[in-house]
Amino acid sequence: MSETVIFGGKNLPDVYRDIESEVRRYCRAYPVEFGRAKGSYLYDRLGRPYLDFLSGCGSLNYGHNCEPIRESLMEYILSDGVAMSMDMYSVAKTGFLTALRDAILVPRQLDFHVQFTWPTGANAVEAAIKLARKFTGRANVIAFTNGFHGCSLGALGLTGNSSHRASSKPLLTQVTHLPYCDYFGPTVDTAAQIEKLLLDSSSGIDAPAAFVFETVQGEGGANVCSPIWAQRMQRLAHEIGALTIVDDIQAGCGRTGNFFSFEDLGIVPDIVIMAKSISGFGLPMSIAFIRPQYDIWNPGEHNGTFRGNNHAFITAAAALKRYWSNDRFATEVKEKAMLASGVVENIAEQYGLSAKGKGLLLGLEFSNTQDCAAVKEACFQDGLIIETSGPKDEVLKILPPLTISRSEFDDGLQIVRSALNKVHSSSRRLATVARAAT
Amino acid sequence: MSETVIFGGKNLPDVYRDIESEVRRYCRAYPVEFGRAKGSYLYDRLGRPYLDFLSGCGSLNYGHNCEPIRESLMEYILSDGVAMSMDMYSVAKTGFLTALRDAILVPRQLDFHVQFTWPTGANAVEAAIKLARKFTGRANVIAFTNGFHGCSLGALGLTGNSSHRASSKPLLTQVTHLPYCDYFGPTVDTAAQIEKLLLDSSSGIDAPAAFVFETVQGEGGANVCSPIWAQRMQRLAHEIGALTIVDDIQAGCGRTGNFFSFEDLGIVPDIVIMAKSISGFGLPMSIAFIRPQYDIWNPGEHNGTFRGNNHAFITAAAALKRYWSNDRFATEVKEKAMLASGVVENIAEQYGLSAKGKGLLLGLEFSNTQDCAAVKEACFQDGLIIETSGPKDEVLKILPPLTISRSEFDDGLQIVRSALNKVHSSSRRLATVARAAT
Amino acid sequence: MSETVIFGGKNLPDVYRDIESEVRRYCRAYPVEFGRAKGSYLYDRLGRPYLDFLSGCGSLNYGHNCEPIRESLMEYILSDGVAMSMDMYSVAKTGFLTALRDAILVPRQLDFHVQFTWPTGANAVEAAIKLARKFTGRANVIAFTNGFHGCSLGALGLTGNSSHRASSKPLLTQVTHLPYCDYFGPTVDTAAQIEKLLLDSSSGIDAPAAFVFETVQGEGGANVCSPIWAQRMQRLAHEIGALTIVDDIQAGCGRTGNFFSFEDLGIVPDIVIMAKSISGFGLPMSIAFIRPQYDIWNPGEHNGTFRGNNHAFITAAAALKRYWSNDRFATEVKEKAMLASGVVENIAEQYGLSAKGKGLLLGLEFSNTQDCAAVKEACFQDGLIIETSGPKDEVLKILPPLTISRSEFDDGLQIVRSALNKVHSSSRRLATVARAAT
Amino acid sequence: MSETVIFGGKNLPDVYRDIESEVRRYCRAYPVEFGRAKGSYLYDRLGRPYLDFLSGCGSLNYGHNCEPIRESLMEYILSDGVAMSMDMYSVAKTGFLTALRDAILVPRQLDFHVQFTWPTGANAVEAAIKLARKFTGRANVIAFTNGFHGCSLGALGLTGNSSHRASSKPLLTQVTHLPYCDYFGPTVDTAAQIEKLLLDSSSGIDAPAAFVFETVQGEGGANVCSPIWAQRMQRLAHEIGALTIVDDIQAGCGRTGNFFSFEDLGIVPDIVIMAKSISGFGLPMSIAFIRPQYDIWNPGEHNGTFRGNNHAFITAAAALKRYWSNDRFATEVKEKAMLASGVVENIAEQYGLSAKGKGLLLGLEFSNTQDCAAVKEACFQDGLIIETSGPKDEVLKILPPLTISRSEFDDGLQIVRSALNKVHSSSRRLATVARAAT
Repeated sequence: MSETVIFGGKNLPDVYRDIESEVRRYCRAYPVEFGRAKGSYLYDRLGRPYLDFLSGCGSLNYGHNCEPIRESLMEYILSDGVAMSMDMYSVAKTGFLTALRDAILVPRQLDFHVQFTWPTGANAVEAAIKLARKFTGRANVIAFTNGFHGCSLGALGLTGNSSHRASSKPLLTQVTHLPYCDYFGPTVDTAAQIEKLLLDSSSGIDAPAAFVFETVQGEGGANVCSPIWAQRMQRLAHEIGALTIVDDIQAGCGRTGNFFSFEDLGIVPDIVIMAKSISGFGLPMSIAFIRPQYDIWNPGEHNGTFRGNNHAFITAAAALKRYWSNDRFATEVKEKAMLASGVVENIAEQYGLSAKGKGLLLGLEFSNTQDCAAVKEACFQDGLIIETSGPKDEVLKILPPLTISRSEFDDGLQIVRSALNKVHSSSRRLATVARAAT
Repeated sequence: MSETVIFGGKNLPDVYRDIESEVRRYCRAYPVEFGRAKGSYLYDRLGRPYLDFLSGCGSLNYGHNCEPIRESLMEYILSDGVAMSMDMYSVAKTGFLTALRDAILVPRQLDFHVQFTWPTGANAVEAAIKLARKFTGRANVIAFTNGFHGCSLGALGLTGNSSHRASSKPLLTQVTHLPYCDYFGPTVDTAAQIEKLLLDSSSGIDAPAAFVFETVQGEGGANVCSPIWAQRMQRLAHEIGALTIVDDIQAGCGRTGNFFSFEDLGIVPDIVIMAKSISGFGLPMSIAFIRPQYDIWNPGEHNGTFRGNNHAFITAAAALKRYWSNDRFATEVKEKAMLASGVVENIAEQYGLSAKGKGLLLGLEFSNTQDCAAVKEACFQDGLIIETSGPKDEVLKILPPLTISRSEFDDGLQIVRSALNKVHSSSRRLATVARAAT
Repeated sequence: MSETVIFGGKNLPDVYRDIESEVRRYCRAYPVEFGRAKGSYLYDRLGRPYLDFLSGCGSLNYGHNCEPIRESLMEYILSDGVAMSMDMYSVAKTGFLTALRDAILVPRQLDFHVQFTWPTGANAVEAAIKLARKFTGRANVIAFTNGFHGCSLGALGLTGNSSHRASSKPLLTQVTHLPYCDYFGPTVDTAAQIEKLLLDSSSGIDAPAAFVFETVQGEGGANVCSPIWAQRMQRLAHEIGALTIVDDIQAGCGRTGNFFSFEDLGIVPDIVIMAKSISGFGLPMSIAFIRPQYDIWNPGEHNGTFRGNNHAFITAAAALKRYWSNDRFATEVKEKAMLASGVVENIAEQYGLSAKGKGLLLGLEFSNTQDCAAVKEACFQDGLIIETSGPKDEVLKILPPLTISRSEFDDGLQIVRSALNKVHSSSRRLATVARAAT
Repeated sequence: MSETVIFGGKNLPDVYRDIESEVRRYCRAYPVEFGRAKGSYLYDRLGRPYLDFLSGCGSLNYGHNCEPIRESLMEYILSDGVAMSMDMYSVAKTGFLTALRDAILVPRQLDFHVQFTWPTGANAVEAAIKLARKFTGRANVIAFTNGFHGCSLGALGLTGNSSHRASSKPLLTQVTHLPYCDYFGPTVDTAAQIEKLLLDSSSGIDAPAAFVFETVQGEGGANVCSPIWAQRMQRLAHEIGALTIVDDIQAGCGRTGNFFSFEDLGIVPDIVIMAKSISGFGLPMSIAFIRPQYDIWNPGEHNGTFRGNNHAFITAAAALKRYWSNDRFATEVKEKAMLASGVVENIAEQYGLSAKGKGLLLGLEFSNTQDCAAVKEACFQDGLIIETSGPKDEVLKILPPLTISRSEFDDGLQIVRSALNKVHSSSRRLATVARAAT
């Protein structure tokens, strides 16, 4: 990833170049300094607006500084509500748990326990596999091709991406990566292969503690698993004494049209991981939902200082009340998703790309990685923040706030089309030049 | 850890018993629901005050809802400042980095790069050892007896505590635990032993990527390393091509009287980990400080959604400006610490305990673990939140906000004395009963 | 595995029951005490002959006490030839290496180096993967479903069998087990799947140091890989910078008709492991053949006391001279194998079994594991030593000495037919009883 | 290790240079081709004798081609005794087990079970730690500084030597290396330190399955553990639920004056490993002795082709009958050892070296590694095979056959003295030159 921006002067402050670590990444793709943000828009220091089709990688499903979530937070801080109380009981936590029970768990007849891990998705993954290993007494865990679950050592073991794995490779043990749904194309039934491998006592794959998967692989390129595949994984897991863990960090919180992404798959996982948008405001928060029979933690066995982010409890409770106390929001998202997927398919057809994804986690797959990067950059020049994903960054990922308006969405896609046109004609020109040269 | 509280009714909401995971811990020791907090005090729902000698395990060095930090945050939210922007450039981040450079790095002539890891100390530890392993191409890491560095898989490998390690044991590889300073008592020079082991090519201890240690072991029981020991570890590390990583999560941010706990030890570590109090407000935030020559990350190589918590940048910048723009605060803390340590030593002498610790991270070591637990519980009954630490929870840890007033501190210690008296006389009574019975 | 034999008296000496470890296995299946052995026959203490269709699991390709191998050994011992000289140069070693070069390597234009590991196949596997890991600097190794490579920790990691893996599971790391040729049946091209997985940088399968496979999986149930599959594995390995290691412990030394089992597959592996029959006499000996560019060992880097078994050098040299100085023996074995495979297919057809295998490593696969065990036991009662293999011990393995005569082979198969008849009619009787009972 | 020998011509056959692996080691130090061997002497192809102070690293305690062991073997082969029968019952095995029971176990009131592992010491170590891990359900194993237990992956984990560990480092997990007896010198009580570390639940050292140690570290430099240290290790192991495993591969079979090296230490280990000299003839053979309560193997759980080397059973039984049916041999060895140790101490004193070791496993420690190597080479020029050991190869190891005569031993030490004189005067000359040059 190159970084051509000039620091200092009217551009970017020197301090980034001088003391921020080389590990910084998104800032290199969007080299402006953001100040304000509201709804579907970010604004740079000078007030220039950027339409957000990235949404904090799915952390801003309700948009930026969403009212009345913001108001609840303001009010809490104003009243000197406790900010930091580790995992003690607090009025803010009570409020969140009550809202979660009433708006989410009871209506869906789900009896999950709720674990507050440290406030990152990766840590909730760490907690989930630690618990599954404890419960089963087994070390191995099944993960899937192109899965992404985080970068701390335990979560990294589950993550497929080799550039993330590189420096920790010899430590990433006790995970077996198996082919995701349709990994070998639509004609190969990977579920059947996985069943054979795990029921064969001589396959060399040790009986696992858990199967960990995303129902839509966000970082993996908007790959979708079918209901039947998910069901077969769950049936197999239970047949061999393993737990199912659904990583709903990116696909959950309404992204695919339901609060939990598995609601239309016909399964109930044993553990569900949620983070990103759960706070409703982009504040660090994560949860592991655990079926009660597996909640065999000793007190404090998986601990950490920031297990209870009271500010996030306040915003999360407000979000649940605002968006999930009835079906209206879910219905809206599903309708938007249907429209959006139609438009994206049109674009795909028009430009020779493949449309992928589900809900409002959509993707356009390029055969040419360079074009994909060029489109992303051209979009940014035109005021649209959009990212790529997939093993070769070959999928342009469309991940707007769920609260985006029809016209904002159209504006965004218009920028995408325009970028595609530019890149398309530039490619054609290059091809013509190349032909002329021979 | 038992939990005798009755849920429901006028006590605690049912929702905790019904759906919060069994992993919850501190709430069992302090079974009330906290609402407001200010300065050195937490208040429960009914308004009862609790003096805080735990300070979010060191996350609230400036107390609860500290003004003017709170004001800065209010103002930011009011102006729709962006809350969530992953690791993009933002006005809030610029402000924090600038304050950090000007108030901390430049005056100390430290040339650290700053990595924003996910906002927990454990994750900063994960990042640090991953980077050290990448830089050296070595897998092994040296950690120390009674060290505590977190519960995600990589950090857990460094952590000594067996109850945390239990369910992940077979996965906790490539860490060698060696005896901390004075681990075998003051007459055994563990630095010399460590030197012999690591310079002997046949000791079986593989050349390490890094030495990771706390200068004061908070969870380990307020154990302190001497300057000479720290210097010898650093010299040895460099002699054998390893990095030094100081985990300053609990002992840093002024806790021992300087911003960095190593400032009076005569070393400059290659990487320093800071979390807990760095945000100044108890918001999730963590940092790895990295000497530039080791900052060989590829962009995004260690990533995660919540790498930039803008709310925390705002509060952290406010805290740096308020407390660290000159020497006044550090001087005050050192004076308080001197007084405090005198008082604690008095108490130790009076009650047959041992005084431990450094700065305002002090401890009273009991020979009898039950007594220690009883004192903690009696303190809570009298309105003082205080915790135990050490391998057997035999050390009562005194960890007040650094901003605590003289009279608040005295009030707290008075509660401790009173609890000691109660437990003392109860022990004596029991002993008398036991004698009478024989 | 049950053991109904009565120890003591005219049966078996008490000393086995009293002090031999519970780990003993084959003796439980063939509970007699063997004394003499010659050619294709073992004789128990009382002189009763047993035809040997097991051949020391492939260690006795030239039969028991084969002349003139035995004579060479007698002569050597008589002359006080050095028995034990670690890896020093010795007249016996010179003789073996010279015979190997002249009879095997030169005619096949193979430029292998020869490493004498400790005298077991598993240790040669340990050496091979250690060397591949050293050469590539990578930890991961690709092994295959139903592969068997030994029980020491490194070799065990490659072995598929879960009962062998059970007690070491958490330590068996850095091996990825992929589906062997035809593992999912003849219509699924596992080579194509493996290519996709290993060329996808996000599959989660780390770049391997080596691919390790058997060309015929002896313990795995006489599964055979096709030439094209072997070639694609070799091409893929080289494309991604990995070595190919063929484990020829059971399938080598003429078992499939050529000295090396890969000779008719169109590949030349980077490392070949040979053990079992290499000594020609059943004495412990093993070899790793290494292409010179990979022979980057430091002197003594993989060492061990019994790296040079001079008695085995003498017998191995005699065997090479007797059987491999021209094509005659190989031709005979191929002819025998063709006949044998025809007969075995006939039996399979007649009794509703599947014929498997290659060369004189043949198998009859039962759909019913009990029947397979019953046939094995009935054979033993009639004086035939024969074993089962496969993940469920469902394959009766036909592994006679390569030197077996036509009539001996017919005698053996006659015993198998007779056992099949007995088991068949007993099954039918049981089925009739079962039907009558309903 | 350099190799200056010229291959071909009247020197060494080309075939070694051409096709033997670079891993060969001892042959580089003793670059002649050995043919015959008898008693304490090896003879090269041309008949030149070499006195053997290495004894196959302890595999030839009864000397080369020892009568009547050789006669028993000849007779067995002549009668077509079965050579290879895996782990079936055989007349040869019966004979060995009976001799072992009668000559060794019964007189010492030891109730060990006997496991025949594959015929190498390392494999017996693999078996022992696998069994301890199975029995305890724990992964970690305690090994000691400078211990040497073999080079297969499991055994290598226990081995201290970094040059052996180098290429497998990231895979050598679940072993904690602790300081051996007197590792930090005679004033530091390492047993007390080990007790503290293992009884501290927060030391970071996981509860182990076993303690594995040598009573005299042969490869580690002839380091000796005291009876009290061994007893404290055994007591500690049992207190924390771990097994003790004594690796008696080099120190056992009479080397220290008793059959088992632990007989004068006041302990009975839970598992004892024996190899090297157990066959009495230098043939590959090894044993794990297991206290019955720990013999929880499933049949075949740790298997391998060469688990029963019948030739070795014959020679081992003959050796037990000849040397261990009464106390005479043990008494002789002890007397020899006493004399030998006196002489070696004299030499040490005379040449400024340190005398080390126990029984007939003695060592002379040099402060200057170069001198040690030079003495070894000078000895070989004068017809004495002698090796170095210790972390820097700084200890000249004196390991003659136990059957060596007084005059042979004196001859050998005379060669050592003479070599010391040469090296001494050469060092002095160099020093003089160096002084003159300044």
